[in-house]
Amino acid sequence: NNQFDPTEHPHRRFNPLLGESVLVSPHRAKRPWQGQEESVDHEVKPAYDENCFLCKGNTRINGEVNPDYEGTFVFTNDFAALREDVPKASKSDPLFSMQTERGTARVICFSPDHSKTLPELSISEITNVVDTWQQQCAELSQTYRWVQVFENKGAVMGCSNPHPHGQIWAQDQLPSLVERKHHNLQKYYQQHGSNLLLDYANREFALDERVVCANEDWLVVVPYWAAWPFETLLLPRFAITRMTQLTSAQQISLAEMIKQITVKYDNLFQCSFAYSMGWHGAPYDDHDDSFWQLHGQFFPPLLRSATVKKFMVGYEMMAEAQRDITPEQAATILKQQSLTHYKEVNA
Amino acid sequence: NNQFDPTEHPHRRFNPLLGESVLVSPHRAKRPWQGQEESVDHEVKPAYDENCFLCKGNTRINGEVNPDYEGTFVFTNDFAALREDVPKASKSDPLFSMQTERGTARVICFSPDHSKTLPELSISEITNVVDTWQQQCAELSQTYRWVQVFENKGAVMGCSNPHPHGQIWAQDQLPSLVERKHHNLQKYYQQHGSNLLLDYANREFALDERVVCANEDWLVVVPYWAAWPFETLLLPRFAITRMTQLTSAQQISLAEMIKQITVKYDNLFQCSFAYSMGWHGAPYDDHDDSFWQLHGQFFPPLLRSATVKKFMVGYEMMAEAQRDITPEQAATILKQQSLTHYKEVNA
Ligand SMILES: O=P(O)(O)O[C@H]1O[C@H](CO)[C@@H](O)[C@H](O)[C@H]1O
Ligand SMILES: O=P(O)(O)O[C@H]1O[C@H](CO)[C@@H](O)[C@H](O)[C@H]1O
Repeated sequence: NNQFDPTEHPHRRFNPLLGESVLVSPHRAKRPWQGQEESVDHEVKPAYDENCFLCKGNTRINGEVNPDYEGTFVFTNDFAALREDVPKASKSDPLFSMQTERGTARVICFSPDHSKTLPELSISEITNVVDTWQQQCAELSQTYRWVQVFENKGAVMGCSNPHPHGQIWAQDQLPSLVERKHHNLQKYYQQHGSNLLLDYANREFALDERVVCANEDWLVVVPYWAAWPFETLLLPRFAITRMTQLTSAQQISLAEMIKQITVKYDNLFQCSFAYSMGWHGAPYDDHDDSFWQLHGQFFPPLLRSATVKKFMVGYEMMAEAQRDITPEQAATILKQQSLTHYKEVNA
Repeated sequence: NNQFDPTEHPHRRFNPLLGESVLVSPHRAKRPWQGQEESVDHEVKPAYDENCFLCKGNTRINGEVNPDYEGTFVFTNDFAALREDVPKASKSDPLFSMQTERGTARVICFSPDHSKTLPELSISEITNVVDTWQQQCAELSQTYRWVQVFENKGAVMGCSNPHPHGQIWAQDQLPSLVERKHHNLQKYYQQHGSNLLLDYANREFALDERVVCANEDWLVVVPYWAAWPFETLLLPRFAITRMTQLTSAQQISLAEMIKQITVKYDNLFQCSFAYSMGWHGAPYDDHDDSFWQLHGQFFPPLLRSATVKKFMVGYEMMAEAQRDITPEQAATILKQQSLTHYKEVNA
């Protein structure tokens, strides 16, 4: 058989956002796994934990006391990677080039309930999270050019506290990956006269091969160039450059999409599905930004089960990302997952 | 105090090889760690393990029997991510672009002794590993444009078998990271009329701030732009574009350097220090390649102890790499480590 079969033959797919490829080796999914297994946390957590530094009324490491909050709660990270008070300095030697960076890092608690995670919150609670992201972006964009909203979920993704929370880092300069995206989105716009991610959303919706779920405003796809096994892109189906432009109705429809994809993730291996997720949109100083489009990204490490993850190591660190199952296979599996959280079914 | 202090103030350093930056947040090293801890394997392994598919005389998953080898042993990966028999196919749509990739993936056993790791082998045994890399590159470069030599060491780096071994993947096209390096090395050469990595080795040797160890031919530095806490670059102090050009004397002096840095790594936290390491050199079709320089890279994940690693997650996946201790601090710590392996001292 000399016919190309994407589920059999190694091939490279191009990621037009980052301008790099991923090696797809679908036949490799058959290999047995004898390596490291992750531990699964099936412990039922209390709604309040006196040792948690994100719970209501508890004292944090720096002595501050958390308020008796409802909904979300935002504070400056006690060990922020970025600071407001940094002297200006730079060095522009071709081999030893640096510049100081000014910024801030905040923590956002998604709910006062220690026992919950994002997929277990109601649509209105998730809408409140989206609204908080939007408010934070509006506030921080007064001072900073870039605001990075993200969540690390699960111990395997470096999250040290199960209390539902995310982070917001803001800074003066554009981070490296954002700079690359900016450049590629702009180039596409110049070449095609249209918005890369809006074109992409429309084509994926029509093709319906990699769509996991969708509503009138939003679409979740396993991108054609996904690197992580169950990586997804959360795309608007309308033009919107930044988080700050969401209407109240779009906040709600976005909360619905976030609920759907995160419930499907948890159902996939019947565990709290770890991931890093985050948002990209136009930098806050760009006036001609029609080539930008707001979008969310989920990078989940699990591959075969609740305990076996994909390792992005040797070849991936030296050469390029490599994946086993195809994006179409991953999308089909995610699409099949129920929209009812497994804990609710089992309850 | 308004003076910039690299051990106090967040700053971004530029990696001229990849054309991207890393955020250095040294003050952050003070934060307490309550997250995931890795397990440490202190088990003493037997020199021969009947269940290991890399030991002499054992039968592998596909039914092949390993020979009664001395020194190194190379075979084609039973679950190779790249294959020789792939039909040609491609798609060049701006949003859905792909091409099939032809290649091969081999496993290289460093020693028949199941109980050893690279730092525990003798200089002559490591020289034999280097010689095998060189022979493999010579052979595979007859067919393929790129040969990626690498090692994933430790369960935390996705290595599923403690038997000392590495991998060699060869393919027709240049992987994404290699393409970027190729471009940046060439640009530097055009601008400065000299070789980026040879210039860099000379300047680091003279500065002596980030040098971990060196001999007449080679130099190990924590690069100015290191992303992983104890990342190192292994650089030749002479012009050499490819692995295939090593002389016998250079093979031996390289084995010495590999022994030194890997012993220091193991001594740092008194454990078998996990890493991914690999080699980059000029692609095998490039005739005008004087801008290239052979070099090795070590990417080790551990940060504070044998059990606490650095997580490259949310911010790092969405924005850019972030590190806590400075490269200078890491180099000082590594430099202080003994050249005698802790197991030999404790024996
Ligand atoms: O080939 P191995 O050792 O089974 O697999 C390991 O190394 C490969 C190359 O870096 C990775 O793609 C795999 O995720 C990792 O588990
Ligand atoms: O800030 P946290 O949650 O303590 O830390 C986690 O997220 C950060 C941002 O992605 C990473 O730099 C850290 O390595 C990770 O452990």
